[in-house]
Amino acid sequence: MGIKVKIAIIGSTGYGGVELIRLLASHPLAEVTSVISSSSAGTPITEGYPHLTGIREELLDDVDPAAIKAKADVVFLATPAGVAAKLVPSLLEADLKIIDLSGDFRLKSPALYEQWYKKPAADEAYLKQAVFGLAEIYGDQVLNAPFISNPGCYPTATLLGLIPAVKAGWIDPSTIIIDAKSGVSGAGRGASLGTHYSELNENLKAYKLNQHQHIPEIEMVLSDVASKPVVTTFTTHLVPMTRGIMSTMYAAVQGERSSADFVELYRSYYEGRKFVRIRPEGQWPTTKEVWGSNYCDIGFAVDERTGRVTIVSVIDNLVKGAAGQAIQNLNIMMGWDETLGLQFVPVYP
Amino acid sequence: MGIKVKIAIIGSTGYGGVELIRLLASHPLAEVTSVISSSSAGTPITEGYPHLTGIREELLDDVDPAAIKAKADVVFLATPAGVAAKLVPSLLEADLKIIDLSGDFRLKSPALYEQWYKKPAADEAYLKQAVFGLAEIYGDQVLNAPFISNPGCYPTATLLGLIPAVKAGWIDPSTIIIDAKSGVSGAGRGASLGTHYSELNENLKAYKLNQHQHIPEIEMVLSDVASKPVVTTFTTHLVPMTRGIMSTMYAAVQGERSSADFVELYRSYYEGRKFVRIRPEGQWPTTKEVWGSNYCDIGFAVDERTGRVTIVSVIDNLVKGAAGQAIQNLNIMMGWDETLGLQFVPVYP
Amino acid sequence: MGIKVKIAIIGSTGYGGVELIRLLASHPLAEVTSVISSSSAGTPITEGYPHLTGIREELLDDVDPAAIKAKADVVFLATPAGVAAKLVPSLLEADLKIIDLSGDFRLKSPALYEQWYKKPAADEAYLKQAVFGLAEIYGDQVLNAPFISNPGCYPTATLLGLIPAVKAGWIDPSTIIIDAKSGVSGAGRGASLGTHYSELNENLKAYKLNQHQHIPEIEMVLSDVASKPVVTTFTTHLVPMTRGIMSTMYAAVQGERSSADFVELYRSYYEGRKFVRIRPEGQWPTTKEVWGSNYCDIGFAVDERTGRVTIVSVIDNLVKGAAGQAIQNLNIMMGWDETLGLQFVPVYP
Amino acid sequence: MGIKVKIAIIGSTGYGGVELIRLLASHPLAEVTSVISSSSAGTPITEGYPHLTGIREELLDDVDPAAIKAKADVVFLATPAGVAAKLVPSLLEADLKIIDLSGDFRLKSPALYEQWYKKPAADEAYLKQAVFGLAEIYGDQVLNAPFISNPGCYPTATLLGLIPAVKAGWIDPSTIIIDAKSGVSGAGRGASLGTHYSELNENLKAYKLNQHQHIPEIEMVLSDVASKPVVTTFTTHLVPMTRGIMSTMYAAVQGERSSADFVELYRSYYEGRKFVRIRPEGQWPTTKEVWGSNYCDIGFAVDERTGRVTIVSVIDNLVKGAAGQAIQNLNIMMGWDETLGLQFVPVYP
Repeated sequence: MGIKVKIAIIGSTGYGGVELIRLLASHPLAEVTSVISSSSAGTPITEGYPHLTGIREELLDDVDPAAIKAKADVVFLATPAGVAAKLVPSLLEADLKIIDLSGDFRLKSPALYEQWYKKPAADEAYLKQAVFGLAEIYGDQVLNAPFISNPGCYPTATLLGLIPAVKAGWIDPSTIIIDAKSGVSGAGRGASLGTHYSELNENLKAYKLNQHQHIPEIEMVLSDVASKPVVTTFTTHLVPMTRGIMSTMYAAVQGERSSADFVELYRSYYEGRKFVRIRPEGQWPTTKEVWGSNYCDIGFAVDERTGRVTIVSVIDNLVKGAAGQAIQNLNIMMGWDETLGLQFVPVYP
Repeated sequence: MGIKVKIAIIGSTGYGGVELIRLLASHPLAEVTSVISSSSAGTPITEGYPHLTGIREELLDDVDPAAIKAKADVVFLATPAGVAAKLVPSLLEADLKIIDLSGDFRLKSPALYEQWYKKPAADEAYLKQAVFGLAEIYGDQVLNAPFISNPGCYPTATLLGLIPAVKAGWIDPSTIIIDAKSGVSGAGRGASLGTHYSELNENLKAYKLNQHQHIPEIEMVLSDVASKPVVTTFTTHLVPMTRGIMSTMYAAVQGERSSADFVELYRSYYEGRKFVRIRPEGQWPTTKEVWGSNYCDIGFAVDERTGRVTIVSVIDNLVKGAAGQAIQNLNIMMGWDETLGLQFVPVYP
Repeated sequence: MGIKVKIAIIGSTGYGGVELIRLLASHPLAEVTSVISSSSAGTPITEGYPHLTGIREELLDDVDPAAIKAKADVVFLATPAGVAAKLVPSLLEADLKIIDLSGDFRLKSPALYEQWYKKPAADEAYLKQAVFGLAEIYGDQVLNAPFISNPGCYPTATLLGLIPAVKAGWIDPSTIIIDAKSGVSGAGRGASLGTHYSELNENLKAYKLNQHQHIPEIEMVLSDVASKPVVTTFTTHLVPMTRGIMSTMYAAVQGERSSADFVELYRSYYEGRKFVRIRPEGQWPTTKEVWGSNYCDIGFAVDERTGRVTIVSVIDNLVKGAAGQAIQNLNIMMGWDETLGLQFVPVYP
Repeated sequence: MGIKVKIAIIGSTGYGGVELIRLLASHPLAEVTSVISSSSAGTPITEGYPHLTGIREELLDDVDPAAIKAKADVVFLATPAGVAAKLVPSLLEADLKIIDLSGDFRLKSPALYEQWYKKPAADEAYLKQAVFGLAEIYGDQVLNAPFISNPGCYPTATLLGLIPAVKAGWIDPSTIIIDAKSGVSGAGRGASLGTHYSELNENLKAYKLNQHQHIPEIEMVLSDVASKPVVTTFTTHLVPMTRGIMSTMYAAVQGERSSADFVELYRSYYEGRKFVRIRPEGQWPTTKEVWGSNYCDIGFAVDERTGRVTIVSVIDNLVKGAAGQAIQNLNIMMGWDETLGLQFVPVYP
């Protein structure tokens, strides 16, 4: 099997970081050699995560590019907004490969970042270097790239569900409406009233209407695919479950297309890409059917009465929406089979 | 306090029936005198519902119009689709007032019923007699009417959220898209794989796309309000919680209207109607904020970028979406204050 | 109906306080005239609790005994540990009646309080004045008392389930083991990792083994009832639900007693007390069967093989375990029927 | 890697069967060659389990020993009570190795089986052949055995938590009380009111007190370990979550033993057994900390006040409590490392 690629994870105490640890534990060609957390450096990772007892019990490292370089070849950043923007220059300088799971390098325009994230943007030169790693769409750019910006969870489910139809001209991009729903783990591990158990259990909540920072990310890619500016309506909801995202998407159909036509178009578009599964006509995926796995499952319903198509796309937000796709990008970047270490059967029930 | 109006409930062992029992227990002018279940007649109601121990312990009655008439003035029907269609003629003949919570008398066209419900429709003469009891909209027709058809849960949340804007011409009815989500109690008490705990917990599921029987009910009312035929896109989802419905609705805004304008329009439209609460700009209701109560709460977000408004409307599906609105209709029918016996504070958390 | 008793609630922004507001909203002889929160004084209560929109929208008052006295006759304290200890002297001095829902005045020994609560105890003189308001047991002391200490949630479920058997000498108090489980609302509204949605959903957790501050409260009463010192094993668990407590209790049976004998003993002991419901042999209550209500339901299983009895006792922790029992104590204190304003049917499902 | 051992799974459409499929998908030395279901033979497995789309899509086979023998070396039985009793003789005759996940061959006495399972027992000759596969305890008997009876979920968590202390004489077996709690998946996939979402969500339920069929299984092993007859009190609860079992166990301590002493005793007892993790003093495992994995985690609390120890033991009921331990037994049976294919990190959160 030869020598494994060595991985450092910055932000190991967040849900994205700990999911990277879980998934990489069974990767055949990569191994985690440094778990890093600026806030908890020096304490054992099991202090915050007793489920790692007997699996990984080392102390958390601090963020130090030179020390990281001594231990690792590739760095995953699973940090809050604004942190990667500051760390990336020194990590690149230390000649580390980077896969950034935060939103800091997804938007190519600093102004757009600042408008939606309400934070200072990263330096534009670095923004341009970062390849947007929506693996099934931009995989050819990921290959051999040293610096990947991993897509957001909502954009992943949404874009994989829309792109083939937009590209084929089967839907009118100006009519796209996205009603997205997420489990609570997407909000991270920071405790707040908004993620307090008694407030969210047996509750359903719409939030950040027209203001979510994933809107410009979705529009950036749709505009690229449609070769013209696209604006969309995008609503996010918090659902009382831990994992899972569903995007229910609506658009006006152009031409005469049945649900079966959409199934065929998408199957052909994603041929050979194992992580996108197109459901047969009349079947729509549920979030549990991809739980714990790197799959994105998609189903369709064309309504002749209204001339619209409804597209349902689901992922596990922490896997395909974060750590799983990041590893898929690692695989592609290294020239490996993209499924390496990711062939989990969804956990059901 | 004088003599109370006597109530019989047919279908007392379903969730709608048992919620009527709960709510009517504290009604000042009505009392339940007969709890009826054809399937469980002769057994104590506490056998299936031990939570009624010490509250109501009588045996369930069988369905017999003459016997009902001897005990009651008003009959609530909380029966599965197809049952009320058969029972109503004999109940009307026995000179009983009727409030039907099932869908059997909502659609005025037998053909439409048969198309969407896949069952034989009720006799058209009776369909015409039944007043559609969306209380805040058709309350004037409910007053003194002997036979009320109580609206469906999804239509209640949806229509209360759309009507003022449609009526005012502020949104284009042909652009309306309704993304609805419900807790599982809406599926009733019948056990099936589709309502099995381990399948629904930690899961989110879209179902019956473009095929839900509430679509023609919503379109019937919207067409009436818009004075022209309206067709809509309507999607339903099952959310891992017991109670609550949220309709997230999208439409193109006609004219220059801000979120604040919508707030004002709706406040004015629903003035004096206690059960509809319009939230201030920038605040959207969650389902828990109406849990266990008869409220319908509504919030708005106009997006200048897209020219669309998003309307969020929530109810408790078993209260405002079923038993609560049925009692509200009883109150209106009898000429009482519509809030009688329904002034519950939502249960929070 | 005459003039209502005026109620002030200190700690209105916690779950106990907001449940008092909900329950008192329909009390026929009491009304809430001041909602008080030292931390949020001056802001509208709907800011933190939008579910109160249109119901109560006043600003929160600050804690000021003279101002309270001007507005109210009785003060409910729903404050964190340590706060009531400081406030009570001045409130008593202002000639207000007090019902304290916190743990500050339950234990009569300052040393015991300090050992288990790790905080300075209240002045012993006041500790002695406070009547321990376990309504079904000490109701005669509550009548006309000006200062009531409301029992804890776990002790209420536990003690109501144990006292008749201990008093009758049917179980050996030295063998009592209490395995208690609670919904998460018992932990209050303060956000922390320990109450973070993603950590508690789909999780079951034992906590504070042998260290819970309700242990001395339970032992104080059991020792009183048994007329000898009783120590017990008591374990608490957090269950992924919002409301509900179940105490599963084990003890060695003394003499030949069947489950049916226990049913009869308890029915006779609690005769006339509407809020305790003894289940028939072979039926054990679930927490949902008392949800939202002031009931405590109890069931039994005697095992001849082991000579032990298992007693299952359930309550809604925020009602019978807090706000509901506090109102029951108000009723008793005022000489009213103890069920006034509390005759809710449990919310099911 | 050589030729893999071929596995047939009878009962592939239950939760135990589908979990075997999930776990064996990544086993390096075994592969599933036949998925069998008598009730659904001839239909694709994805019909009931769409999450297997693109992973396994074959038709389900019928139960036919000769056909199984042609395809497989080892048969896993994940069937309802009573089925394995009938199938095993013909499967053994076909010279297949058997791992039975049902309860049919756990009790060695037919009379005991019939008393607790209320069904005819298997032939006593076969009962005697079956090795009780509690892997960490009876692994030496599993090695090379052709026929394994896999332990029940509750007994696994319970026995691993009790055996070292019983064996060491540190606790008095006659005082053992077991308060067990389980997620709902333990009840299987059959729909019933008792597993209906709206009945179980936000609910906690005790069931089968003193009557659970796992009681004689637990007592059989404890009696073996203690070398004298042991009877225990054992209570089961249904918790609103899908996976996870916690056994909270109580016993009188013999001799002077601290929590730290118990930690040391258990660490030493389970040395080298990777799937049992003993937590440090003052830390108790939660069910989520073993979710999706084959771990059994155990913690202790000795109480000097009462002279009792509380032991908390958790597993994932579908993994260590069923499919995972069955594969662990396959590994041991074949002479492989017991952790093969089972080194999953728990899924957190």
